[in-house]
Amino acid sequence: MEKFTRNQRVAAITKMLIENPNKVINLNTFTEILNAAKSTVSEDLVIVKDTLNRLSMGRIDTISGAAGGVKYVCGISNEEKMDFVEELCIILRNKDRIIPGNFLYMTDVMSNPYIIRKAGLILASAFNDKKVDYVVTVETKGIPLAYEVAKMLGVQLVVFRRQAKFTEGSTVTINYVSGSNGRIQNMSVSKKAIKENSKCIFIDDFMKAGGTARGIIDLLKEFNCELLGMGILIDNVAIPKKLVNDYVSIVDFNGISPEGNAVLMPSKKFK
Amino acid sequence: MEKFTRNQRVAAITKMLIENPNKVINLNTFTEILNAAKSTVSEDLVIVKDTLNRLSMGRIDTISGAAGGVKYVCGISNEEKMDFVEELCIILRNKDRIIPGNFLYMTDVMSNPYIIRKAGLILASAFNDKKVDYVVTVETKGIPLAYEVAKMLGVQLVVFRRQAKFTEGSTVTINYVSGSNGRIQNMSVSKKAIKENSKCIFIDDFMKAGGTARGIIDLLKEFNCELLGMGILIDNVAIPKKLVNDYVSIVDFNGISPEGNAVLMPSKKFK
Repeated sequence: MEKFTRNQRVAAITKMLIENPNKVINLNTFTEILNAAKSTVSEDLVIVKDTLNRLSMGRIDTISGAAGGVKYVCGISNEEKMDFVEELCIILRNKDRIIPGNFLYMTDVMSNPYIIRKAGLILASAFNDKKVDYVVTVETKGIPLAYEVAKMLGVQLVVFRRQAKFTEGSTVTINYVSGSNGRIQNMSVSKKAIKENSKCIFIDDFMKAGGTARGIIDLLKEFNCELLGMGILIDNVAIPKKLVNDYVSIVDFNGISPEGNAVLMPSKKFK
Repeated sequence: MEKFTRNQRVAAITKMLIENPNKVINLNTFTEILNAAKSTVSEDLVIVKDTLNRLSMGRIDTISGAAGGVKYVCGISNEEKMDFVEELCIILRNKDRIIPGNFLYMTDVMSNPYIIRKAGLILASAFNDKKVDYVVTVETKGIPLAYEVAKMLGVQLVVFRRQAKFTEGSTVTINYVSGSNGRIQNMSVSKKAIKENSKCIFIDDFMKAGGTARGIIDLLKEFNCELLGMGILIDNVAIPKKLVNDYVSIVDFNGISPEGNAVLMPSKKFK
């Protein structure tokens, strides 16, 4: 088998690490694919590590021991973060987005891979240092964002359904009260979907009063699971009284102005 | 500003390309971030290009002209593809997955980023050379897979809903007949979600008789849109008569054997 040059090994190693965020890759994987000695691969890894550090593009962590190796931990520079959030606010302020009932049309945004990748990166970065077992969300609009966060954290996504489905086997269903209109709603999940005593984060597209978030906490309790944190793309700050406190968000939405403009700005909860 | 070494530039360029599949990146983006001459960056790109080629990890295309630059086009080696599909069959054959009604529990698989990334890569690779404007799917289970394919192809995802929502503005709704049980169902999408005369592919988790696929074609006709192709994770070949013909799939499911085992193998439609 042919050898690779250092440059080529660096390109291949970077690709394999970036594509598997938060997954420990044993050095043997690289030595086999690249036909190189462990010491050589270790030197290659120093180059990748330094580059990501210098450009604030995340980091490479080394895990020692028998099951050890290296892993890519996602990250984003403050500059790139602020540029993205400003850009997102401009996209969301488009007058065509205001639909009857003074709702903001954002379905396209929630399914736009360019936007969701960056939003997912920002939210995942906020939970990088917690030991998360599952990312949970409730269908439908927030699924791509929650999937992106789960992928960045290298963990399983769990989607709670509005109704139990027969393709899910035995399910656990709870009722919860929507915080904004007081209606009773359902949330359901397969018993197979979550292991007891796990640690979860909740990711969603939009926060009104936080009734859904309270429902998530209740449903997780049925599995003796703990909610470590919440990440939201858009926080409706026009509803100041929330049923939950501890969450991160990216954009604040403060309703429609008398002039008919959507009032949007980078979230105050956003660092 | 400090200079970067060739190795460091190669690492940074690889990361930026891999994270933006099918998006043309102008060489100026690299020269600015890496403080290097265009000729230098061009040489770096040759290294990245050669490495991906040699390892069958996708390719780098050069686009000439004023709006030109380079882009990463996803790809997977036949060996990696076959290893993954065999592994997926083993996961799906687990006896615990058979639930009342002889359904296969696969919700966890459809929300597992490791599985969905590879499945998405395989399906996206089948449509790399078509000019796709949208990836469409119908809620709920197939959304992560469809999102992953849309991301790999660098295009917008559109999720069709079972019911029109007031947060979607004006919607178009069609009725279609489920191919397996003959029931009439709805499918709905915001009028804002799709531009007329676009080219789409449909991605879903499971194919029975193909009634949903027929519904997708009908709903796309309302927008004068063309369906270029379909990609399915699991094809239920126990229902041999399909309402649609032209699709790619990854795994064939041939029902539950008399011994109570799910019969699963790499799809015959899978090359």
